[in-house]
Order: sequence, then structure tokens, then C-alpha cells
Amino acid sequence: VTRDPLDWLLPLLAIPSISADPARAGDVRAAAELLLELCRTGGLRNVRLLEAPGAHPSVYADWLDVPGRPTVLLYGHYDVQPVIDQSSWSSPAFTPVVRGEAVFGRGASDMKGPLISMLVALESMLAEGPLPVNVKVLLEGEEEIFSPRLRAILQRHRELLRCDMAVSADGSQPLAGTPRVMLGTRGLCDLELIVRGARTDTHSGQYGGAVPNPPQILAELVASMHDADGTVLVDGFYDAVRVPSAVERAQLAPSGWEPLAEAASLELDGFAGDPEWTPWERTTLRPTLELNAIHSGYAADRLMTAIPALAHARISCRLVPGQHPEHVLAAIAAHVRRVAPPLVQIECRPGFASTPAYRTTRQHPASRAVAQVLTELYGREPLDNVDGGTIAALTLIEDELGVETATLGFAGDDENAHGADEFHRVASLARGRAAYRLLLDRLAG
Amino acid sequence: VTRDPLDWLLPLLAIPSISADPARAGDVRAAAELLLELCRTGGLRNVRLLEAPGAHPSVYADWLDVPGRPTVLLYGHYDVQPVIDQSSWSSPAFTPVVRGEAVFGRGASDMKGPLISMLVALESMLAEGPLPVNVKVLLEGEEEIFSPRLRAILQRHRELLRCDMAVSADGSQPLAGTPRVMLGTRGLCDLELIVRGARTDTHSGQYGGAVPNPPQILAELVASMHDADGTVLVDGFYDAVRVPSAVERAQLAPSGWEPLAEAASLELDGFAGDPEWTPWERTTLRPTLELNAIHSGYAADRLMTAIPALAHARISCRLVPGQHPEHVLAAIAAHVRRVAPPLVQIECRPGFASTPAYRTTRQHPASRAVAQVLTELYGREPLDNVDGGTIAALTLIEDELGVETATLGFAGDDENAHGADEFHRVASLARGRAAYRLLLDRLAG
Repeated sequence: VTRDPLDWLLPLLAIPSISADPARAGDVRAAAELLLELCRTGGLRNVRLLEAPGAHPSVYADWLDVPGRPTVLLYGHYDVQPVIDQSSWSSPAFTPVVRGEAVFGRGASDMKGPLISMLVALESMLAEGPLPVNVKVLLEGEEEIFSPRLRAILQRHRELLRCDMAVSADGSQPLAGTPRVMLGTRGLCDLELIVRGARTDTHSGQYGGAVPNPPQILAELVASMHDADGTVLVDGFYDAVRVPSAVERAQLAPSGWEPLAEAASLELDGFAGDPEWTPWERTTLRPTLELNAIHSGYAADRLMTAIPALAHARISCRLVPGQHPEHVLAAIAAHVRRVAPPLVQIECRPGFASTPAYRTTRQHPASRAVAQVLTELYGREPLDNVDGGTIAALTLIEDELGVETATLGFAGDDENAHGADEFHRVASLARGRAAYRLLLDRLAG
Repeated sequence: VTRDPLDWLLPLLAIPSISADPARAGDVRAAAELLLELCRTGGLRNVRLLEAPGAHPSVYADWLDVPGRPTVLLYGHYDVQPVIDQSSWSSPAFTPVVRGEAVFGRGASDMKGPLISMLVALESMLAEGPLPVNVKVLLEGEEEIFSPRLRAILQRHRELLRCDMAVSADGSQPLAGTPRVMLGTRGLCDLELIVRGARTDTHSGQYGGAVPNPPQILAELVASMHDADGTVLVDGFYDAVRVPSAVERAQLAPSGWEPLAEAASLELDGFAGDPEWTPWERTTLRPTLELNAIHSGYAADRLMTAIPALAHARISCRLVPGQHPEHVLAAIAAHVRRVAPPLVQIECRPGFASTPAYRTTRQHPASRAVAQVLTELYGREPLDNVDGGTIAALTLIEDELGVETATLGFAGDDENAHGADEFHRVASLARGRAAYRLLLDRLAG
């Protein structure tokens, strides 16, 4: 009898394991405990939570009965994004439901679905006999908040987690056409910028013209960081960037990614940015400095003729190979100091994320095995690919465990990850299970 | 027996006549009805509410028994500012209380206190005999929202309101030293600026570098409107400005306004702005373009790596003589069109206020009479003064009734008008009553 992956997925989706929300810490732990149970049921051993101070726990399990064969670390995360606006969902985000060909619920695509595919693959193989390789499973609870304490967990349990290579199930494949092997991600750093003026909001009739205007000054600071093409004007921002060669650019050019169609899907007439790079390259191979939020004063649709005392902005940078998060933050802070006008206090408060870009190669045994699996499943050779997003674990695993991580996951590009009505295709659950069965065979060599 | 002005003031202060809050429309009307009653009690006649569609009512009353003598329109307003943060008040804003030498409550200083001084002056004179001049009282309910429907009320009742001159009680005097005759105000216009990008917030990992960033673009738009000294870079903004002569500047220079002390009271090391003008001139004689609010994205103290789809800003301009609100708004809209980048939709939505600057002269009979009264009360000749704020009624009365308005009011500069713990000195109530008794005698000629 083959287990239906939905038997395991639906209860997991029902738990709101939102790592960003301190009020949900109990739910995050409940999801970890459910996963412990699933790992045990699936025949894995040494099942336990890995903890670090202040951290949501990681789930660990292993099966190590084939000494002499490689040991593979299988990575996933069970935490999910917040639900900003439940009203834009067709059904409650944490009441998972199968509609048509898909299962709907927060985390279905990112990545409780792909994670369950991986676990049911192990379960089905263990039900049949020994695995072809040794396996260690690591399921993180803080990926969606950029893994602030995963390094501490890896350091505390370095011996336990020692392995020859790693594979992450946190990946996607195109809906149709040629599959892809994910060979890297962008990094991330972020900061809050705060401008303080007079001790209190002031009346613009009494003081307008003489009191410094914090939102205006903040707007000028932010504006000074880009030229009209969106090129970042912060001294040193691009210094360490390893510029990809023409060969790499050609190799990484995606198939079936039509800029105009992609822009139209967002109701845009085209894409912005540096014309020396294709729109796709701008979102994957080039670094960014983005304003994610700016706030000052009362509601913008009301008239309140005050000069606000305070203005806040949040900036984040997507980083490419060569760039160090700390150097980039220091360059931004130096830029702010250089252009800061007098009379106001400006604070550059480093943020939550600090992750360099990640790269692995098609030649690495794990990526070679992933490519073989994809060729087998899709009937054609996969393309190389890098992703514009950020998965902190990839860098942390390399730093602390000394191994590279390949990626094999079947989220769909259209499955509304991080958005409303997130879903995962039921067929992708089966494909994921088949893929992981094939993968372990290939990794056995 | 002399009436205590507090008998009338305290019940009026207890009514939250906040014109900006639609939910308070009933309270605004209740305050108007209380004033009708006070006018009747005080011996005024023809007491009634003046209405216009959508308007908070104005209170009208008159006494016209000395034909051949001048008719003076006495202006005040009974609406008050909102209470943004009751927690920063020492006592409930609408539970008036006398503590020490002052009465505390929203509107005490701006301007229910000065308004009651004017009414008790009329009451006390009418109790003694005929007034020396004909009087028409006009008490507005929309001053704090820039009098959007006062023009309609003046037009509907032009005959009723016909007069030879006007005096507003909405004015202030310094706490010590030389009194001042208020000869003008700045005008005001405002707008909302909205930038729309993609149809929804987008993931900065997936799209960062190619999707236009509305808050960034809004910051650049706002930044493009000023140079480093705060000079406005909008073409045409200064075109019509009547630049004051050196003589006027010398005449209007305030006594006892120390820029460094004034800045220090706001916890600033000095004032910003164009060094060709003194800080005081920047707040009264020069126009401004101020960013009052800017909002986009989630909380700035959280990490949410999205590119917001929408960004809003509110801008208001304080205007000086020569500038037309509509021309200034049109110049800003043209500037925005000129510098707007492609791919985003930018909307310039005209706002709530549209008031040119106001000027009267020391030579006008009403201002001459005000100056005489101040000389008598303070024992020294008053200085000329203009105010950086905006009182729409002054312009509207000139436009619709063809008369200039002098100002005689005794709010203190430190009485927290528009702020928490607003108060009015009890002594200023008596001074206001004495001043209006003197004023009517002087106006009789």
C-alpha cells in the first residue's frame, strides 16, 4: 500500500507555523513535533529536535545503516510566511483543502508540500528495504525569517550533522518545458533608516521653512542612492561584485521567460532597470538596493499641516557573489553619513538578514545527480539556473558543515508562494516522491 | 455685576466641536446652538445659524441700532483641532478645568477663549446702553479645516453680512514685551501624490531589479522638488511671488524672537532653510513646499522583502502674496509630469485647502483702531507683524464682502494651540474683554 502524501501534508498545513510572529512560537513547535512523529512513522531513527537559544527548533532524523556509502543531508523548512490579509484568500489559510488538482493552504508550495514529498519518498523506500545511501534529515523552523539562529544550531550539532553532501527540497520547476538545476541564490542584507528632527511634530504655519523636514530629508537620502536606471550610487556597493562572463550569462539565460509577458502579468508595460542587463539578469545576477517601506506623518489622504518629527524607511539589498552583507551595510552607512544634512539625527540600524549569495556548480556530485533525476523525469536535459531569492541555509551549511547543497524541489512558479491562495499541485507531490527515490539511487553512485 | 467669562467658556469647551471629524458633526452643531443662546443672552439680535450644503453652520447675530455709525463684522471660529493623542494630556481634552492661572481644554486658546472675550465685551456694553457702532457677529465652524464652505455661506448671505470693516478675534500676542498688529498670513494649498507600480506587492527576490519601486520613485519625485537649502525647484513656484522690500523686512522683523533659543526649544541646534532670509522670515515671508506625510509598505521596523505596489505622499505649500493656489498646484503637477519615470502611474490629487496669502495695512481704519487699543493696554506702540499660518476667512471676507479684516486676539504663543494640554490664561479673557470694549469705542471714530 502506498501512502497518500496528503495524509501527512494536510495536518501539517493546518498548523500556523509562522516563524515571524512571536505569538505563533507554540504553533511552530507543534509543527516540529508533528514532523518528529512523521519521521518516526516513516522509519527514520535518532529523531529529535535541535535547539539553540531563542531559536525555533530544527527537526533532525537519520538512517545510517550503509557505512561506506555517502551520507546525504536532506534539508527543508517547515515554517511559513505570515498571512497579511486573510480576506484575499478564497478559504482560511490554515484550513487546508484540496480543490481540483491542488491543495490550498499557507505553506503548501513553500514548502510543506515539497518537504512531505521528500519524507514520503524515504518512508516508501524504508518500507521496501535499506536505503542506497545514509541519510540525515534537517528540517528548519526559521527559513522565512532568514535563519537567524541556524548557524548556532549547526555549530552545536556539527558532529551529528556531518555529511558528504546536501540536497535541499526548497526549489521549484517551470510549469512546462525544460527543467532547471538551481545553482545559486542571491544574498540579502537589510537596515532601517531613521531621521529625527525637532523634539515633536511642529506646525507648518509656525515653523515651515525653518524646521528641518525629516520625511523630506529621508526621501532625499533614499533618492541619492540610485540613478535614473536604478543603478546603485552608494560608493563601494559594486566593488566586490564578481561580474558574470558572457558565457555564464548565455548559460544561465532562461528558456520560456518572456519579459513582456511576465511584465504584463503584473500589469506593467515592461521592466525597469539597467539596460545593459536583461530583465531576468537584473532579478538574478545583479544586486539591488530596494526601498521596502517608508513611513512618516499622518494618513496621506488627510490634511494635517504638521512637519513630522520622525521618518522611517526599510531598505534591503539582494546581493550577488563577491558582495559581503557587512561591507554593503557599512557602505550604505558611510553614504548616509556623507550626504546627511545638518540639524537632524540619522540612524542606520542594521536589520535581520545577513546572507551572502550562494553558488554551487553543475559538476558537484549532488547537482549532477539532481540533473540526472530531472533528465529522467522530464525526458530532457535540464538548464542551469540561479534564483533571485535568498535561502540562508545554503550558505550556513557550507560555512559550518563544509558541504555544498544541490536543490531538488517541485514548487510551481505560479503557486502563490508568500501570497494569497497559496497552493501546491497534488501531481507535484507524487513527482517529488518519485524524484527523491531516484535521487538516492543516483547518489549511491 | 460683571459676568465671569468662564461661565460661558467652560460649557463651550466641553463640546468636542472637531470640524475635521465627520462623526463630530452633531457636536459642532451643538456648539453653534450654545453660541446662539449666548448671543441672545448677551443682548444681540437676529440670532441665527447660516447654512450651506455640507457645511458646519456659522453663527450670526447683530446689533444695528446706530444708523450712520460704521458697521463692524466681528469674526471668530468655534470649531477646534482634533485630539490626536489624549494620553499626552494631563486631563481629558473636553473636560475643561481651571488650574492655577489658566483654563485647560481643547480650543481654550484656539479660539473659544478669545471668542468668548469678544462676546462678553458686547454683553457688558449692551448691559450699559447702546453700542458705539453697529455690530455683526460671524462665528465660523470650519476654520480648522481651511473653511471649505465659508465662501458659499458668505455668498448666500452677502446682504445680511454687509459691513464697513471686519475684525477677527483669532490672533495672538507675545507673552511679554511689545505687542503686535497682525497684518497678514500665508496661504495654503495641498495635494496627495500617489505612485502605482505592479498590480500587487511583488517579491523582491523574484522581481527586485526589474519591477519599478513606487516608494523609491515617490522619494525621488519629492527629492526633486528641493535643493539642499530647501529652495523649491518646481518651475514657476516662485514666479508670482511679490518679494518684500528691505524696508518691509526691517519693519516686520520681530522683537524678542531669538532663533537659537527658539530652535533650542525644539531641541534643534539651529534652523534650516535659505540663508538669504532670516529664520523668522522663512516662516512668514517665504513660501514653502513641505512633505507632511509619506507612506508605503509594511512597518519599517520589520523585514518584509516586498516591493510595495503603492506609495502615497501628502504635500502642502504655504503661500505668500502674489502666489495663486491653483497656479502652484498646476506647477507641481507639471513638475511631476516632467520628471515622472516610465512604467508607473502617478496621480497628483488636489487637496483640501486653497487659500492665497492675506495682507492688510496698518493704515486701514480697523488696524489703526487695533493699534490704538494695544498701545493703550500695553503702554507702548505695537510692532507690525505677519503670521506664517493660514486663516482662510480673511481672504474669503475680502473676496465676498469687499472689506479688509484686522485682528485682535490674546492667545499666548505658548498656549499649546493644536497640541496637548492646550490652555488659555484667565487674565487674557479679561484683557480680551477690555480690548474689545476699547476697540468699539475707537471704531466709532
